[in-house]
Amino acid sequence: MTTTHTTGDPKGDGMEGAAGLLARTRAAVDPRLRTTVESLPGQVRRIARYHFGWEQADGTSAEGNAGKAIRPALVLAATQALGGDPRQAERAATAIELAHNFSLLHDDVIDEDPTRRNRPTAWTVFGVPDAIITGDAMCALALRVLAEDPHPASAKASARLAACVIELCAGQQADCAFENRAPQDVTIEECLTMAEAKTGALLGCACALGALYAGAGDEEVEAMDAFGREAGLAFQLIDDLIGIWGDPARTGKPVGADLVAHKKSLPVVAAMASGTPAAEELAELYRAPAMDAAAVRRAADAVERAGGRDWAQSQAADRMARAVDHLSRAVPELGAADELLALAEFVTRRTR
Amino acid sequence: MTTTHTTGDPKGDGMEGAAGLLARTRAAVDPRLRTTVESLPGQVRRIARYHFGWEQADGTSAEGNAGKAIRPALVLAATQALGGDPRQAERAATAIELAHNFSLLHDDVIDEDPTRRNRPTAWTVFGVPDAIITGDAMCALALRVLAEDPHPASAKASARLAACVIELCAGQQADCAFENRAPQDVTIEECLTMAEAKTGALLGCACALGALYAGAGDEEVEAMDAFGREAGLAFQLIDDLIGIWGDPARTGKPVGADLVAHKKSLPVVAAMASGTPAAEELAELYRAPAMDAAAVRRAADAVERAGGRDWAQSQAADRMARAVDHLSRAVPELGAADELLALAEFVTRRTR
Repeated sequence: MTTTHTTGDPKGDGMEGAAGLLARTRAAVDPRLRTTVESLPGQVRRIARYHFGWEQADGTSAEGNAGKAIRPALVLAATQALGGDPRQAERAATAIELAHNFSLLHDDVIDEDPTRRNRPTAWTVFGVPDAIITGDAMCALALRVLAEDPHPASAKASARLAACVIELCAGQQADCAFENRAPQDVTIEECLTMAEAKTGALLGCACALGALYAGAGDEEVEAMDAFGREAGLAFQLIDDLIGIWGDPARTGKPVGADLVAHKKSLPVVAAMASGTPAAEELAELYRAPAMDAAAVRRAADAVERAGGRDWAQSQAADRMARAVDHLSRAVPELGAADELLALAEFVTRRTR
Repeated sequence: MTTTHTTGDPKGDGMEGAAGLLARTRAAVDPRLRTTVESLPGQVRRIARYHFGWEQADGTSAEGNAGKAIRPALVLAATQALGGDPRQAERAATAIELAHNFSLLHDDVIDEDPTRRNRPTAWTVFGVPDAIITGDAMCALALRVLAEDPHPASAKASARLAACVIELCAGQQADCAFENRAPQDVTIEECLTMAEAKTGALLGCACALGALYAGAGDEEVEAMDAFGREAGLAFQLIDDLIGIWGDPARTGKPVGADLVAHKKSLPVVAAMASGTPAAEELAELYRAPAMDAAAVRRAADAVERAGGRDWAQSQAADRMARAVDHLSRAVPELGAADELLALAEFVTRRTR
């Protein structure tokens, strides 16, 4: 049994298994996702179609790149792991995917991000007002899909997803607030809490909804939520490492992208908090309004010397170990949870 | 029985009855609304408190002016009219008030409105990102309150409110789109559809939720929704008349405010569509980037000569008559619906 992203996969099928599951999830959920989005009114529907990559800005049809379907795959795999029928949980998987994309639409507006999935973001094409409105409608649609689901888990799932959206908001708000503070003033604890709210909460909610749709009891639902949260934190830590040392050819991000953007990512905040000379060097580089290529290399080196890289890697390993512990509370015979484990490894192994 | 805002109130207690009901609604719903808002995280909670007028921007306590509570009063009055216990519907009333305030927060961002209820809008105080995020959290909170309600009507009410939020989005989107079109190109039908989505839908939803919480059947619920929608349209028509001819001392709006803002309100669009010489005169005034006081008077006069004022008044009367027809389908003995009628008259009598 593999427990961290740095450990090998003895079965040798983790990546293949996850990739296959993600492809099957897209195939199972996309038709329902498209039908659901079609229920949106007029221009809002058009912007949603564009955001999902199904349509060009001019309304002609597009290849489609709606993302990796990790969250809906977690829903279906969690249902499966707890002995439920994943087909019964497809509405819940659709709702989770809609909630995720609502948050992307609004995050892009708030962060003024120009691109998403290699295309111009919706707000750059349709304007800020329409992007806000489309996000609002997509959030309400996510909750409508659950509320209209005749499945007995629907009410609990609705309440849980609504609470999760509120936590996503808290995470996004904290992220924005960090941008206005000196990097040394942001503590690791604050940063981890923010990452849990912004990334962990929705992955946890996806797993919890899957458990609810399998008819699981409260303890199993909470254990599955905790599994998803910890796996989500591991995912964020790895993502932050990629943001500094990632291979641009594999990740699509330039080397040191997060440093150039002065992002207070987890390895950076850990390095700043180390009290080492390298921490002061890094803080100095962050005080400058811009970094050239040499400064970016020096900053990455400073994060490493200050222990930020090692810390993030061991934190990610630790979080994955905790995730598996939680999972084993919900699914004592972990063999039944092989899909969930494959997914967790898939999202936390992207540096290799 | 009075059916329009231009007819007298034979009982002589319509306004007093409505004012009393609104005061009682505030007293009944506010404690729950405050407790619910307290469940929001950190900064989001603070911005929500500010928006409701409970706190100043610096966090000190404020007098509080959370609006007139028309929508929650409709919920409670609808429950009462259909023989239910309004106390059982207080969560639903709270949810409706949260959904309304979510839409206000985002509308203020989108329309760049500087003031709301005589105070600086949240986005001007806390910035656009935090105002968007707080609106998102408030929308999710509205749906969470319903989803967590153990009342048997909760699931249907959640689905209905989620659908209503989507319709609000459609209305707001249409309103934004109209701003970018020449006034003559916007048809009356489009404008009425927009007003129904932006104003009527939530009033209809409030009445429908009240009916659901009284255990009413589908037909009564739909009739109550239709009552609220038509009353909402009448309300919007009157509001648009006030925006041109309202008494600034009573309404807080300057005379001709909507004309100065080049707003494509219902009387203006009706006037433009009249094909009269006054319509052309009005279109000419709207083509100018700004209007001085004399131009505003000429524009108001042109709307009147083109028939826009009479049209809006007779439409409002017509909509109120339809509203009462729908209400009588849900509550055949209209005496039981006196509170709903008083509320409908209250919101459509403000020109006198």
